[in-house]
Amino acid sequence: MSLDPTSTLVRPSALFERHLRETIGGAAPVQRYYQMMAYHLGWLDQQLRESAGGGGKRLRPALCLTACESVGAPAEQALAGALAVELVHNASLIHDDIEDGDEVRRHRPAVWAVWGTGHGVNVGDGMLSLAHLAMLEASASRGTSVAARAGATLSRACVELFEGQFLDQEYQARTSVTLPQYLSMVDRKTGALFGCAAELGGLLGGAGAGTVRRLGQFGRTLGRAFQMQDDLLGVWGDEARTGKPSADVRKRKRGLPAALAWECASPGAFAELCDLYAGAPGSSEGGSERVLELFAHLDVQRRARRLVVEEVDAAIDLLPSAGLADAATLPLLEFAALLSTRSA
Amino acid sequence: MSLDPTSTLVRPSALFERHLRETIGGAAPVQRYYQMMAYHLGWLDQQLRESAGGGGKRLRPALCLTACESVGAPAEQALAGALAVELVHNASLIHDDIEDGDEVRRHRPAVWAVWGTGHGVNVGDGMLSLAHLAMLEASASRGTSVAARAGATLSRACVELFEGQFLDQEYQARTSVTLPQYLSMVDRKTGALFGCAAELGGLLGGAGAGTVRRLGQFGRTLGRAFQMQDDLLGVWGDEARTGKPSADVRKRKRGLPAALAWECASPGAFAELCDLYAGAPGSSEGGSERVLELFAHLDVQRRARRLVVEEVDAAIDLLPSAGLADAATLPLLEFAALLSTRSA
Repeated sequence: MSLDPTSTLVRPSALFERHLRETIGGAAPVQRYYQMMAYHLGWLDQQLRESAGGGGKRLRPALCLTACESVGAPAEQALAGALAVELVHNASLIHDDIEDGDEVRRHRPAVWAVWGTGHGVNVGDGMLSLAHLAMLEASASRGTSVAARAGATLSRACVELFEGQFLDQEYQARTSVTLPQYLSMVDRKTGALFGCAAELGGLLGGAGAGTVRRLGQFGRTLGRAFQMQDDLLGVWGDEARTGKPSADVRKRKRGLPAALAWECASPGAFAELCDLYAGAPGSSEGGSERVLELFAHLDVQRRARRLVVEEVDAAIDLLPSAGLADAATLPLLEFAALLSTRSA
Repeated sequence: MSLDPTSTLVRPSALFERHLRETIGGAAPVQRYYQMMAYHLGWLDQQLRESAGGGGKRLRPALCLTACESVGAPAEQALAGALAVELVHNASLIHDDIEDGDEVRRHRPAVWAVWGTGHGVNVGDGMLSLAHLAMLEASASRGTSVAARAGATLSRACVELFEGQFLDQEYQARTSVTLPQYLSMVDRKTGALFGCAAELGGLLGGAGAGTVRRLGQFGRTLGRAFQMQDDLLGVWGDEARTGKPSADVRKRKRGLPAALAWECASPGAFAELCDLYAGAPGSSEGGSERVLELFAHLDVQRRARRLVVEEVDAAIDLLPSAGLADAATLPLLEFAALLSTRSA
């Protein structure tokens, strides 16, 4: 996704980055620990020298801050929530790379690939803990009632996120996955934290319970759409468009394309897909090519695109009843549109 | 440590275990995820059948509940804190086994050894998140001001704990470790969560800020003593008393005995210890025997014991100024005595 620099999404980012850096402190004797976090977040390179880029798109904090503005409060008021969701997201990525054995993250070696599994696990744990701390410490300025609710909202989303990671791992060991199973996984893995981001924006912005809940549903639905689009790009996106089957196909990821293929396959194609997804993924190049052929034959790409559009529409349909001023929903609509039209 | 069943420490345990089990829920499709947690906590065996034992000593919740009673409140009032610290502790153990490559925990296969590293990492993440959620949800009944402070106290302790885990890993790669370095590690790795347990007991029990702080210092100091004793038992305790050098010696753990040996070694013995601790630990049985000889020569066991006693005394000395009724400190003193006299 190439963000438009004039978009509302990147407007608060300098402030956000400054606060994020302040949250990742770390003096001796644990300085190197926090430098490993800074590496993952994109400020340091492998030699722990200042570097630029590679830190991700900061989508969840953008959603949080935009939601805060949508309820009529300055974005700054939701900074703690934005920090917390971004830290949780990045902690989960650090651990996800270990769980999947992925050595590359954002075109650079993953934390565990640089410093080993032990530090990888522990750097994620620290970042997760900092998220909870940042949420409670900073949101205390919003009153303890809001802080306690915000903290519970965050930890509930974390519980769901890791349930989703569990299902993701479980599904990789299954011969087939249904669309409802896929959705129950992505709603947890991605929907929960997107929902949390929007909910925290509303909550810290001082919105009433109904608006906060509706913003949460908006974020959750958008998160589902985002993950669907992500899975789609994982098979047919820019980075996957190398002429060869993408990593998602080679690893036989049980993502949206696979779930959709199983959903609409004939009994014969269903059984063939099961065979192709069983055994040792990636062992045969011909197998991956055949997976792509079946996807094409079953019109999976078009079906997946339609589902993404439907989910974005469903998210947008939630807004009119959220009790927001009409003009205030525009940045949220823009955010939704950006997610569904991104190509990387 | 064999706890005296008539002791105050185990009195609230049935209630605590029931609440802990309720916290670890889990219906389909994520039931197996929570069963992995239940396995680690000692209620299920590897085949996920009901089983008894192997769940640990529940020391941190006992300290939390005892601290709550010491400020004149019923133990039940601090249940959320007790749950939270026990869940954080166990999450850190699940990850610690991955970080250290330890396949056995409490005489049973570690979670990662049964279900793989991926699930191991993710089961710990879920348990950590449940800890934060349990703290905020349950302590909400104590008022949002207390809940927000309790949540921040817990996440601050988590941040410290994982800093300690970082130092633990860093030190394993060093040729020598000083006593102050060792202490800065254990104060984070163990002291922080013991301190948090006692602090939460006071806070949820409704104590004033001064008492809460003092209880925190008491717990923290006790945690340091506990870890020192643990390191001591790791070299000379019941389980280590097999005639052979213990795992801690074979793995060249940079624990209290090693730090003390370096601290009081002659230049010659210092250099020899560095050589023995460098290279591939465990590769030579003779090397481990020589480590034990040097420990004996340097009187390390007696020095370590003295340090443990000094720390327990320091903890006890904090109590008179904590603003507690004299009789109310007795269970805390009993707890401290149990820690320092345990043999396993």
